[in-house]
Amino acid sequence: MTQDAGSAEKRRSIMVNAYDGAAATGLGAADRELIARRERVLGRPYRLFYREPVHAVRAAGAHLFDASGADFLDAYNNVPAVGHSNPRVQAAVAAQLGTLNTHTRYLTDGVIDYAERLTALFPAPLSQAVFACTGSEAVDLALRIARRVTGGEGIIITRNAYHGTTSAAAAISPSLGPGNEIPETVALVDAPDSVRGPGGDAAGAAFAQQVEAAIADFAARGIPFAGMIVDSVLSSDGLRLAPLGFLARAAEVVRAAGGLYIADEVQPGFGRTGSWWGFERHGLLPDLAVLGKPMGNGIPISAVIGSPELFDRFGAEVRYFNTFGGNPVSVAAANAVLDEIEERGLLAHAERAGERLASGLREIASSAGDGRVAEVRGAGLFLGVEYVDAAGAPDPAAALAVVTGLRERRILVSASGTFENVLKIRPPLVFDDADTERFLDGFAAVSADLGG
Amino acid sequence: MTQDAGSAEKRRSIMVNAYDGAAATGLGAADRELIARRERVLGRPYRLFYREPVHAVRAAGAHLFDASGADFLDAYNNVPAVGHSNPRVQAAVAAQLGTLNTHTRYLTDGVIDYAERLTALFPAPLSQAVFACTGSEAVDLALRIARRVTGGEGIIITRNAYHGTTSAAAAISPSLGPGNEIPETVALVDAPDSVRGPGGDAAGAAFAQQVEAAIADFAARGIPFAGMIVDSVLSSDGLRLAPLGFLARAAEVVRAAGGLYIADEVQPGFGRTGSWWGFERHGLLPDLAVLGKPMGNGIPISAVIGSPELFDRFGAEVRYFNTFGGNPVSVAAANAVLDEIEERGLLAHAERAGERLASGLREIASSAGDGRVAEVRGAGLFLGVEYVDAAGAPDPAAALAVVTGLRERRILVSASGTFENVLKIRPPLVFDDADTERFLDGFAAVSADLGG
Repeated sequence: MTQDAGSAEKRRSIMVNAYDGAAATGLGAADRELIARRERVLGRPYRLFYREPVHAVRAAGAHLFDASGADFLDAYNNVPAVGHSNPRVQAAVAAQLGTLNTHTRYLTDGVIDYAERLTALFPAPLSQAVFACTGSEAVDLALRIARRVTGGEGIIITRNAYHGTTSAAAAISPSLGPGNEIPETVALVDAPDSVRGPGGDAAGAAFAQQVEAAIADFAARGIPFAGMIVDSVLSSDGLRLAPLGFLARAAEVVRAAGGLYIADEVQPGFGRTGSWWGFERHGLLPDLAVLGKPMGNGIPISAVIGSPELFDRFGAEVRYFNTFGGNPVSVAAANAVLDEIEERGLLAHAERAGERLASGLREIASSAGDGRVAEVRGAGLFLGVEYVDAAGAPDPAAALAVVTGLRERRILVSASGTFENVLKIRPPLVFDDADTERFLDGFAAVSADLGG
Repeated sequence: MTQDAGSAEKRRSIMVNAYDGAAATGLGAADRELIARRERVLGRPYRLFYREPVHAVRAAGAHLFDASGADFLDAYNNVPAVGHSNPRVQAAVAAQLGTLNTHTRYLTDGVIDYAERLTALFPAPLSQAVFACTGSEAVDLALRIARRVTGGEGIIITRNAYHGTTSAAAAISPSLGPGNEIPETVALVDAPDSVRGPGGDAAGAAFAQQVEAAIADFAARGIPFAGMIVDSVLSSDGLRLAPLGFLARAAEVVRAAGGLYIADEVQPGFGRTGSWWGFERHGLLPDLAVLGKPMGNGIPISAVIGSPELFDRFGAEVRYFNTFGGNPVSVAAANAVLDEIEERGLLAHAERAGERLASGLREIASSAGDGRVAEVRGAGLFLGVEYVDAAGAPDPAAALAVVTGLRERRILVSASGTFENVLKIRPPLVFDDADTERFLDGFAAVSADLGG
């Protein structure tokens, strides 16, 4: 299981863990027929997960079920943060759909109440919200704002970043693979590598120096600087959580050069890390924060949070209207999500459950004693397990074997990172003790198989 | 009520019919306080309609209600096409939300069933669908596909087009006003003007000649050509419906030059014009069609429809994944919308109701005899009333006076067009005979006031 840049490029273009009809095994005739219909009508831009795709017909809590009633443990999906088929979200959406669903050019109460509740969860001066429907739209709007208010174009991102699928968001998403060109107005910096080092203060300094160098390079090429956007847990870079504060240091460099620092909270936001927002871990105050995925537990809603000063500068020249953005039904779902997170204490739960899961994973990796796991890292219920080969090089084949082995045990995860050698464990926040035990049992069995 | 380009520019930057706190009249203390809270938390990119905004708390069919129970006739909103608070959509969404809501990387039945049903409504070879959440996202994806498969950059649009709010969609939306820059890779052509002429074949020829000239100009400037995108009813250009076939002729020119023709069906699609798609009026076969607004009756869902050949070329190099795109809940809403359109015969209804409305409007305009209405035009339940002054110049003040006068009678419409002098009448498709009578009575009264 060795690794070179060429094969990593090739794998990235096809997506690790994608279904491949030519190599498919174990599928029944009905699923084969459904996949054939799917390929006819949805076409080639679509990908399915797994050599043997999961055919889901029902879900509840942290569990998906197939037509036979078999129960899949969901340790992957962050969108249904307050649980699949959450009854409170369902009731709120159904009630609102029978009452009023319109846009923000009429005066309605719900979007104002919710915006006040949401912005109260942010430090000053982040007190205003603009709503959209997807993380991609919110990222795209944050870029428009950054470019408009700075007059710049150049954006700094991390080397394997993912920020979305609009033209502008895809242009800052190198993790989409080599078919997705990154323009010269985008500069890449390497995330700190907690396995290979350096660590601690040197890692923070090295990251800040790369940001400084990127800004200097923009200047040398005559590209005015607009800012930097980073996922606060660097998910697609392989979940890069340390050293604490390295993002705050980078943000200082960005601001000193007149740029905006944008925190992409689409993955870490809404309690995933045990705090409301991932940037809190770094003692960081972003200029803009971008929210999405779990915000409506699957009902499309997203937002950009910022200061009145920034939104005034943007809004004085440009109006922003998103037909479905901040509609009463999406807002009702989002409000129910906040109710669930608060009343069920899901921030504290994410922290506790994440610690329990991390220590269990470390114990299993350590007792395997085969050195395949270089590190188990996590923040709340977002955990990564990094696989390496005997020479210490990234081992994506091992990670894929674990993803596949867990799927055979009906446990859902995926892999991430530049070399896709980092197991990505990111369950609904309602993942309970029994779910944790089942996950650890499965992981232990798969780890044993891997060693054999 | 005269008009010059400078004042049109200024008005476009602030949006016709926007609420202006300094000029507000007739608002109660509670609404003033709600607007103050709104301005604090939603900020300046947001705009409210009307000098006296509509505060909606409930809606049903083609009617919105305020807190006092007052009934507003909705002749403006195309999103709730099958009616505000439609019970079938509500039931479908509630049932699906309690069953399963996940993404397209697991195998699920609903999105495949719906994609088959939807693409069957298109002519061959448009047999595949890619789902997103908003019209903006779908437009943005169509642009990515056009640029990727042609290798081009240059896009032709109409002079006052609106296609959306992402960076790439806003760049082809000059109707957003002068604060929204249009890049040099975008070329503008003038829509046929059925009031000022030329009409008939000369109008089609003039439009095609502009497209040819734009392509030649791209070539002269070294900008490779990617294609053309047009709203099939040219809503924001003031609803430009004639001569029939002018868009087909333009599409031929585009294809001869190697570009793609994209039909923006976000406004005309799903029966608005009395046919499923607006491009059908022109005998046109687009390369890509973009769907949105009424597709889920307010639950966010959108799509790009195209041929396997195009999606293959795009998808071979680029994967497209939209977290909420094609999720089971949005698909359940969209499926219920098709049920409603088909079972209630809303295509035929749109045609009949539109004709009745158009003939009523023409009669009122004609008996007013003041020459203010240059033309009443329409396709199904999308109608425009164009206002001119005594010299025949566009008269946006007259249109705004009608919008405001109708709002005072609790009837909701808006204005569009380069000079915002065209009344935009675009009610939910369930607009019934009583709604039509009420609308015509209100229009007659406001027209009489205007004449006085």
